[in-house]
Amino acid sequence: MKFSAKQIAGMLNGTLEGDAEAVVSTLSRIDAGEPGSLTFLSNPLYTQYIYKTQASIVIVNKTFVAEHPVTPVLIRVDNSEAAFAKLLAVYNQIKLNKTGIAGQCHISGNAVIGRDAYIGEYAYIGENVKIGDNVKIYPQVYIGDNTVIGDNTTLFAGVKVYSDNKIGNNCILHAGVVIGSDGFRFAIEGEGTRKIPQIGNVVLEDDVELGANCAVDRATLGSTILRKGVKLDNLVHIAHNVEIGEKTYIAAGTGVAGSTKIGRNCLISGHVAITGHITIADGTVLGGATGVSKSLTQPGQSYLGSPALEVSRFRRAYIFFRNLPEIVQRLEKLEKERK
Amino acid sequence: MKFSAKQIAGMLNGTLEGDAEAVVSTLSRIDAGEPGSLTFLSNPLYTQYIYKTQASIVIVNKTFVAEHPVTPVLIRVDNSEAAFAKLLAVYNQIKLNKTGIAGQCHISGNAVIGRDAYIGEYAYIGENVKIGDNVKIYPQVYIGDNTVIGDNTTLFAGVKVYSDNKIGNNCILHAGVVIGSDGFRFAIEGEGTRKIPQIGNVVLEDDVELGANCAVDRATLGSTILRKGVKLDNLVHIAHNVEIGEKTYIAAGTGVAGSTKIGRNCLISGHVAITGHITIADGTVLGGATGVSKSLTQPGQSYLGSPALEVSRFRRAYIFFRNLPEIVQRLEKLEKERK
Amino acid sequence: MKFSAKQIAGMLNGTLEGDAEAVVSTLSRIDAGEPGSLTFLSNPLYTQYIYKTQASIVIVNKTFVAEHPVTPVLIRVDNSEAAFAKLLAVYNQIKLNKTGIAGQCHISGNAVIGRDAYIGEYAYIGENVKIGDNVKIYPQVYIGDNTVIGDNTTLFAGVKVYSDNKIGNNCILHAGVVIGSDGFRFAIEGEGTRKIPQIGNVVLEDDVELGANCAVDRATLGSTILRKGVKLDNLVHIAHNVEIGEKTYIAAGTGVAGSTKIGRNCLISGHVAITGHITIADGTVLGGATGVSKSLTQPGQSYLGSPALEVSRFRRAYIFFRNLPEIVQRLEKLEKERK
Repeated sequence: MKFSAKQIAGMLNGTLEGDAEAVVSTLSRIDAGEPGSLTFLSNPLYTQYIYKTQASIVIVNKTFVAEHPVTPVLIRVDNSEAAFAKLLAVYNQIKLNKTGIAGQCHISGNAVIGRDAYIGEYAYIGENVKIGDNVKIYPQVYIGDNTVIGDNTTLFAGVKVYSDNKIGNNCILHAGVVIGSDGFRFAIEGEGTRKIPQIGNVVLEDDVELGANCAVDRATLGSTILRKGVKLDNLVHIAHNVEIGEKTYIAAGTGVAGSTKIGRNCLISGHVAITGHITIADGTVLGGATGVSKSLTQPGQSYLGSPALEVSRFRRAYIFFRNLPEIVQRLEKLEKERK
Repeated sequence: MKFSAKQIAGMLNGTLEGDAEAVVSTLSRIDAGEPGSLTFLSNPLYTQYIYKTQASIVIVNKTFVAEHPVTPVLIRVDNSEAAFAKLLAVYNQIKLNKTGIAGQCHISGNAVIGRDAYIGEYAYIGENVKIGDNVKIYPQVYIGDNTVIGDNTTLFAGVKVYSDNKIGNNCILHAGVVIGSDGFRFAIEGEGTRKIPQIGNVVLEDDVELGANCAVDRATLGSTILRKGVKLDNLVHIAHNVEIGEKTYIAAGTGVAGSTKIGRNCLISGHVAITGHITIADGTVLGGATGVSKSLTQPGQSYLGSPALEVSRFRRAYIFFRNLPEIVQRLEKLEKERK
Repeated sequence: MKFSAKQIAGMLNGTLEGDAEAVVSTLSRIDAGEPGSLTFLSNPLYTQYIYKTQASIVIVNKTFVAEHPVTPVLIRVDNSEAAFAKLLAVYNQIKLNKTGIAGQCHISGNAVIGRDAYIGEYAYIGENVKIGDNVKIYPQVYIGDNTVIGDNTTLFAGVKVYSDNKIGNNCILHAGVVIGSDGFRFAIEGEGTRKIPQIGNVVLEDDVELGANCAVDRATLGSTILRKGVKLDNLVHIAHNVEIGEKTYIAAGTGVAGSTKIGRNCLISGHVAITGHITIADGTVLGGATGVSKSLTQPGQSYLGSPALEVSRFRRAYIFFRNLPEIVQRLEKLEKERK
């Protein structure tokens, strides 16, 4: 994709200074701009770089006053950061705008595919699958029987969705995501155990995004549910029958055990371990590597440590933990004096 | 799949009350039953729902006495929970009963495939692979050269098995599982390191189940071994030359480093980190996020914390940890009084 | 692959004792050798096994003197361990020496493939991809548009590389690795959030190895960079805009959050959680399950605990933590005596 300075100024309603025919094909940071790239200046701390950057075009605020000669073409706008973000989104949209049904892919005879879908090479679409409009199914994706996928959803390469699941509109599932694997449930039987059949499913509501290699287990019965706007980072584990409230964010490497209910608007950091069959209140904030072994019922609280303590309590206690050798020395001193 | 009340009563040896031709196509929970679904009542706490449920059929105990009018068809049996579990298993078996060799898959000329196998689209079966009877290989699975797979084993979509591994009978490998990747071993050589070739393999004995996106490395020499009945949840890492004893269960997100030997009948929770070259005794129980940095040699003990402490010791110590600010205040008070 | 004792003695410049026509097809440990296998004796503690092993050929040091009758063929060399390591490498090289372009794979018309490449079944090579010489692309690999891959690099089955990434020479990506998924970044907008487009890429320099099911996110703008010789174990998460210095090793299950810079020659254990926007000095050593929540600026230091403490400090404090119940008893005793 190549754009001229004139085209970009047009898209941004900006004023052009310099060669209107200058062409860029990529975006860059101002402190690392290469010829043929476009960047922006917003933070005054970075003003120095505009005099050295090799980028071909720089978007600047209307108020910018150059104190030294500037080589790149300038495009002046009201808000250079917002203008650049707009370009990022346009660029991304063009780049990801795959369409068409691949020559080599398997679509079951009774599957229903919406308008303007992209179905990549070696993708597999099972029986009775329903796929909405503008959906992008990248190569090597697997969609099991009876699964339903809403409009404008993207499944990147190699996503595996078992049968009977529901995925909403505007969802993004990154490569390697698994949806609908069996919950980890076994019943004791004699000296051994017996696998409990897992016949529920997974429901992802609208606007859900799952990072690379996440795994979301189906419910034993009923549904594992990720509500509207839930976002998971990479390598997150969600067990059977878990329910996660709207707009809760979970960072990489975290795991949630079976039947736990997490509220809405929670911020859960990376490497957090949450046990099963508990409830976590709306707006809960969990710091990195927190371990949660019982319900957290007060909304909007922050926790740290394993098992989880209120964050200020944990931080103060940890300072004393660090100093335990000295604290015990003081105790020993008192003990000696007593004698 | 649709079943009539009459068919189900026959399967369960139950007594029918209501419309014998009522039809169900799915299973549900009694507190969330939809028309066309079948559910059961066992726990007395849920009795209230039988008067409101929209499920079409409810399995109840013979002893159940309705205190209000009941809409759904009833099937009376000796043990409603056991009867429902039986239906779950039947339902699951029918649903997962894929057979046949896909039109588009790669099976090497000298691979041997047993009777009644399912080989899905875009699966790859390498040279000299031997696959038993009733094996299900879902789409996009990769099986490297010389690997042997026993009877009745299922590999869900996208499982990757490197060459030379052995997988037993009745195993289940969920989507995204990797078997036989290289162990993480490097020898120091001059100022750098040299990769140590990993030419051993992985052996999964019978009845092993691995959750989505687990990774089990091959041995450097010899075998990484998961004994009969080992069950791993999602996203578990098993390093080279590890050996895990019979019927040990490991929850999601746990990792076991190289050459460690874990006993039989252990219960290992999620997000546990186990170091390399140690031994863990039979029947050991490890709580969530435990860190194990040396051998645990006494059978049947429970541990928590990182590094691992005996669980009651950890819990008591953690209460005092939580209260360290107050404990130190008490110490300061004594110090002041002394002066 | 079968080799005679004579062939092997020739490869190793060794002296043969016994049947020059003895044939082996696999390698084994001396304490577990089967007929048809080759093993070695180096550690004197294992000398006892040479009198019992069923291996067909044993490589021994020139200085070895048998004290009992020995059944296998012996090959005497200067350094039996080094000679065996050489055979391992040869064996591995032959085993992994796949070549040729599969009948069923998708290579875009304008992709450039180097000499002697292996492209496996159902692999997908996007637009403008450039692949070097001697590269091995196993079945079901996905390579997005504009990605560049250097010489002698191996991508095992099912690796997924998004568009626009750069992978160097001599890299190894194990099955299930994902390169270039979106960074986990959302901007607050009104009552909700807006996804920040992630249009940077991932750069893996030469000699990088990534274990099974690792996920490396692309940069928001610019590059997520793993420098020459970085090695990741299985299931490691690397977030957007992270930079990892040369020859740093990271064990399984560890995660590094966005924009963090890790120095060279660091040794990072498993299940470590590293927060975003910090710096970790060259040569830092992090013990298992360490949590790093701020920059570690002194080179060559070792840490443990969460949050991370200097390792000796953590170990001493943890001993006192373990004994907190007794320490508080001592405090109580002093308090009682005072009254």
